[in-house]
Amino acid sequence: MWRLHQFPLCPFSRAVRFAMAEKGVTAELVAAYPWERSETLSRLNPAIQTPVLENGQMVLCDSHAIIEYFDETVERPPLVGASASERAEARRLAGWFAQRFYSEVTAPLLAERMYKRLVSREMPDGIGIRNANRAAELHLQYVDDLLDENRWLAGPTFGIADVHAAAQISVADYLGGIDWRGHGQAKVWYSALKSRPSFRALLADRMEGIRPPPDYDKLDF
Amino acid sequence: MWRLHQFPLCPFSRAVRFAMAEKGVTAELVAAYPWERSETLSRLNPAIQTPVLENGQMVLCDSHAIIEYFDETVERPPLVGASASERAEARRLAGWFAQRFYSEVTAPLLAERMYKRLVSREMPDGIGIRNANRAAELHLQYVDDLLDENRWLAGPTFGIADVHAAAQISVADYLGGIDWRGHGQAKVWYSALKSRPSFRALLADRMEGIRPPPDYDKLDF
Ligand SMILES: N[C@@H](CCC(=O)N[C@@H](CS)C(=O)NCC(=O)O)C(=O)O
Ligand SMILES: N[C@@H](CCC(=O)N[C@@H](CS)C(=O)NCC(=O)O)C(=O)O
Repeated sequence: MWRLHQFPLCPFSRAVRFAMAEKGVTAELVAAYPWERSETLSRLNPAIQTPVLENGQMVLCDSHAIIEYFDETVERPPLVGASASERAEARRLAGWFAQRFYSEVTAPLLAERMYKRLVSREMPDGIGIRNANRAAELHLQYVDDLLDENRWLAGPTFGIADVHAAAQISVADYLGGIDWRGHGQAKVWYSALKSRPSFRALLADRMEGIRPPPDYDKLDF
Repeated sequence: MWRLHQFPLCPFSRAVRFAMAEKGVTAELVAAYPWERSETLSRLNPAIQTPVLENGQMVLCDSHAIIEYFDETVERPPLVGASASERAEARRLAGWFAQRFYSEVTAPLLAERMYKRLVSREMPDGIGIRNANRAAELHLQYVDDLLDENRWLAGPTFGIADVHAAAQISVADYLGGIDWRGHGQAKVWYSALKSRPSFRALLADRMEGIRPPPDYDKLDF
């Protein structure tokens, strides 16, 4: 039995949960908060980061490595893409959302709206939040542009680009950082994701002490 | 003919060059400096980052996506690993060096010792450099630990973990941030890399206006 060490607002853990659910692989969730630097997490992952997936014998760290592992060991549905060039585009975009969207949008929102509220008990910094919201706006514009070309972010089929984008966007949305107005294409795409049972399970999750906006898990938003 | 848009001290471009040379694929080098935000780079890569690899028809961005592309399209030598779990470990470590080592060591050294010297013409910040050197020390310790278990960083064979680690370390070394004393295992490993023709070509490269320490490209250091 796989155990996934994660917390509800970790976007990388969400990407892993989303991908595993698509593959039909189940995992028991174990709560882990990296900032507590627990002995268990440090022993499992020298980076002291979530997500970590383990089954008592094997330990897998890093959302990209974990998702590629399941794409290699569980045939259907394929998540990385068909041809080598489609796969390169899917990986480029997975990296885009896991790195740029995370560092410009999700990480500052987590710092201001989760960490300061739950851990350090400071007031959030309005400028930090405003910059994150502005960056989110540009990323949604990029999602619109990508969807001008393709049905899904990286090509004709659903895959890791959609998984990583949806994972990051859903955390930003939970923290009030997403404004869908003016992003019709992105909204249609996200609405299609919201109707997938694999993604709905994620959206049902709550971080204790922080409530998402009312439309967060609504199919109609 | 592939063209690689890069600059000599970009560690991600070095990783791509190293991997392509191992695979026996040649590319023409085109100088690109992300901070100049040239039209060409912005058009090729909306992230406005190096490396970008293109051949007039296809454009590949992101070092991980590019290296996986060549691992899928050029059979020998395999760079990602044999079994799914070896591949997961190799990808975890490639991510470790491309993200943690880069953000803790290479990026601050590039900011202080390259960007400030060549672009913004400011004095480097001694504290920033000292912190980067200290972080490098911990990473070399981790390399030693990994080599206690395996011949190469991620297992019995050379691969992407070694490529990404060597790319980052070589840039830090160029900028004076690596002290090998007390890291005998890491040094033996790096010395084996230095004797590979694929890596030697990289070390022969110079960034105009910045000279590396005398031992930087010596086999005996
Ligand atoms: N490259 C990792 C990044 C994971 C990551 O950054 N996780 C965050 C939580 S959302 C974390 O553990 N941060 C604590 C830290 O980096 O010290 C992945 O893709 O899984
Ligand atoms: N994820 C990318 C990272 C590339 C990257 O960060 N490149 C640096 C140069 S070493 C860059 O272009 N920085 C400018 C910027 O991020 O704006 C990769 O693996 O290729």
